Amino acid sequence: MDPLSLDTVALSQDKQKLIILDQTLLPGEVKYLALSRIEDIRESICALRVRGAPAIGVAAAYGLYLAAAQTDTQDLDVFCAAVHTAKERLNSARPTAVNLSWALERMERVILEGRSGMTVPALIARLLQEAEAIHSEDIAISRSIGRLGLGLLRHGDGILTHCNAGTLATAKYGTALAPIYAALEDGWTDLRVYCDETRPLLQGARLTAFELQSAGVDTTLICDNMASITMARGKVDIVFVGCDRVCANGDFANKVGTSGVAILARHYGIPFYVCAPSSTIDMGLPSGDHIVIEERASQEVTELWYARRMAPEGVKVDNPAFDVTDHTLVTGIITEKGIAYPPFSLAFQQFGF
Amino acid sequence: MDPLSLDTVALSQDKQKLIILDQTLLPGEVKYLALSRIEDIRESICALRVRGAPAIGVAAAYGLYLAAAQTDTQDLDVFCAAVHTAKERLNSARPTAVNLSWALERMERVILEGRSGMTVPALIARLLQEAEAIHSEDIAISRSIGRLGLGLLRHGDGILTHCNAGTLATAKYGTALAPIYAALEDGWTDLRVYCDETRPLLQGARLTAFELQSAGVDTTLICDNMASITMARGKVDIVFVGCDRVCANGDFANKVGTSGVAILARHYGIPFYVCAPSSTIDMGLPSGDHIVIEERASQEVTELWYARRMAPEGVKVDNPAFDVTDHTLVTGIITEKGIAYPPFSLAFQQFGF
Repeated sequence: MDPLSLDTVALSQDKQKLIILDQTLLPGEVKYLALSRIEDIRESICALRVRGAPAIGVAAAYGLYLAAAQTDTQDLDVFCAAVHTAKERLNSARPTAVNLSWALERMERVILEGRSGMTVPALIARLLQEAEAIHSEDIAISRSIGRLGLGLLRHGDGILTHCNAGTLATAKYGTALAPIYAALEDGWTDLRVYCDETRPLLQGARLTAFELQSAGVDTTLICDNMASITMARGKVDIVFVGCDRVCANGDFANKVGTSGVAILARHYGIPFYVCAPSSTIDMGLPSGDHIVIEERASQEVTELWYARRMAPEGVKVDNPAFDVTDHTLVTGIITEKGIAYPPFSLAFQQFGF
Repeated sequence: MDPLSLDTVALSQDKQKLIILDQTLLPGEVKYLALSRIEDIRESICALRVRGAPAIGVAAAYGLYLAAAQTDTQDLDVFCAAVHTAKERLNSARPTAVNLSWALERMERVILEGRSGMTVPALIARLLQEAEAIHSEDIAISRSIGRLGLGLLRHGDGILTHCNAGTLATAKYGTALAPIYAALEDGWTDLRVYCDETRPLLQGARLTAFELQSAGVDTTLICDNMASITMARGKVDIVFVGCDRVCANGDFANKVGTSGVAILARHYGIPFYVCAPSSTIDMGLPSGDHIVIEERASQEVTELWYARRMAPEGVKVDNPAFDVTDHTLVTGIITEKGIAYPPFSLAFQQFGF
């Protein structure tokens, strides 16, 4: 199976449903869901059926279009208010990734800026156009990140990645895995990838190992706590991770554990790169102190996936879904416009972010 | 339930069976096994039914006594050869912890040094005495480590630990958790403990969280990859870990992930202490490069505990059970004779190791 042929997120042919690959069932089952109700779309984002900052952005854009198309009014004010309510509902699904609010803001701007002299059907058509643009741009951006990242790789390199920032996390190609797909396109067959399993939701084991192995990449799964010995053994030449929100100074939020990987990489002298479409760069946040970290249910740690409960009843559990990595630990940030090196704030300005 | 009332490892009253608490069933089920056959005892060590370097040493000592008691000979040479064969068989159960070979060597020395003029029954009685001494010394050693470790704690401290080096890993009290039990004895009620869940075998979730919560300690379970954010949030004042083998220079092997915790502690400026009974100190090994790391089955990562397989079929898995932490990352090594500070080799000499 070619993992790049999987549509992570798409609009149905009749443009009345959002089609998502239910990632909670992978790798055992490849099942698509067809969703039209905004509450179902929101639940899919909350429950990580569709996940990955870029993919969430695309799903939310289509979701807002569907909500707009389902309004039963020709009154512009009523229409805009309904779209705004739907936007707020979708936006509350997850707090940390900026792509969600970025895509929704971009969608709403279309109707706020374009409404004068327009009819409701015309605005709905514009929303569809904008969602499709976000979708196709995401593919182009991932492709560009992949080509830039490939320039950092040497034949035979060992790459460590955390969580899933692959084709399953985007419309196609991924961010952190995009350089590996670019290498495959160029006929490279000698890269080695180490996937942190990424507790508690096991995106590395279930998703990254699944898509890389499907693509024929030499893939080794490790537990998160094995990253240190894997680096100590000299198996890792470079680290690529994705991100959910990058601040103006280069601090960034990504799946919990990423900051630990960055600290290990620094200790072992291994370059550490963040793959960040410009939609994840939030110039409005000066530093990582301002990022809201999503806290998720304790059952994800103690019960989910297991045949029996794996911790004593009633034990306290901390389950932050993300952590913030300090920009001083980052070698470079690969955006679609180029690779930013420190000082990141200056580089971001030069890229026009 | 008082976790200190649980006998991790003991000899039955009729002295014909090794009694172990099957730790693979915790926290859901408290079940004791009564084992007499050496192959069953070996299997229990391999399968981590009894685990923790000190507890393995005690179990192996009793196991060797049982093997000796089961020999059907009065010929000293035949007897010694049979005991040696049993010793080699037990010693091959796990390679990394030194306590296993340390206890077995100590047991065999009793019959090698004491055999002249002795009968087989008299040597068997000496072996029983030695195994019981190893058992009771382990309790005293853990207690001493606990008192010394308590001297490092302040009221309200947050302690992070990895894997299980508690009462379940020893004959009683534990090593890394012994200071917490010492604090309880002194009436402290304000310590907070963060337990890494410790993939793949979840000793932190299943065992450490279980025994600390049972003891009434404020216990929070986290995934291994959350240690970084937990430290970054200022919740951790000190790290205590156990160990399976300490080298002459202070490098040490412990459950995989320990070296990562040490690197994080260094990054965040948090003191990092290793709790090491002298039986884990291997002055014959100059440094950690010489420690053999046990590699375990991939199914522990991909399938064990789960209701369904959590990684694609056929994916490569690395599953080292231990890693080596460089002595430069260690603040101090708490032994029963005192706390060793760098240079560790000198401190070990002063303690007479």
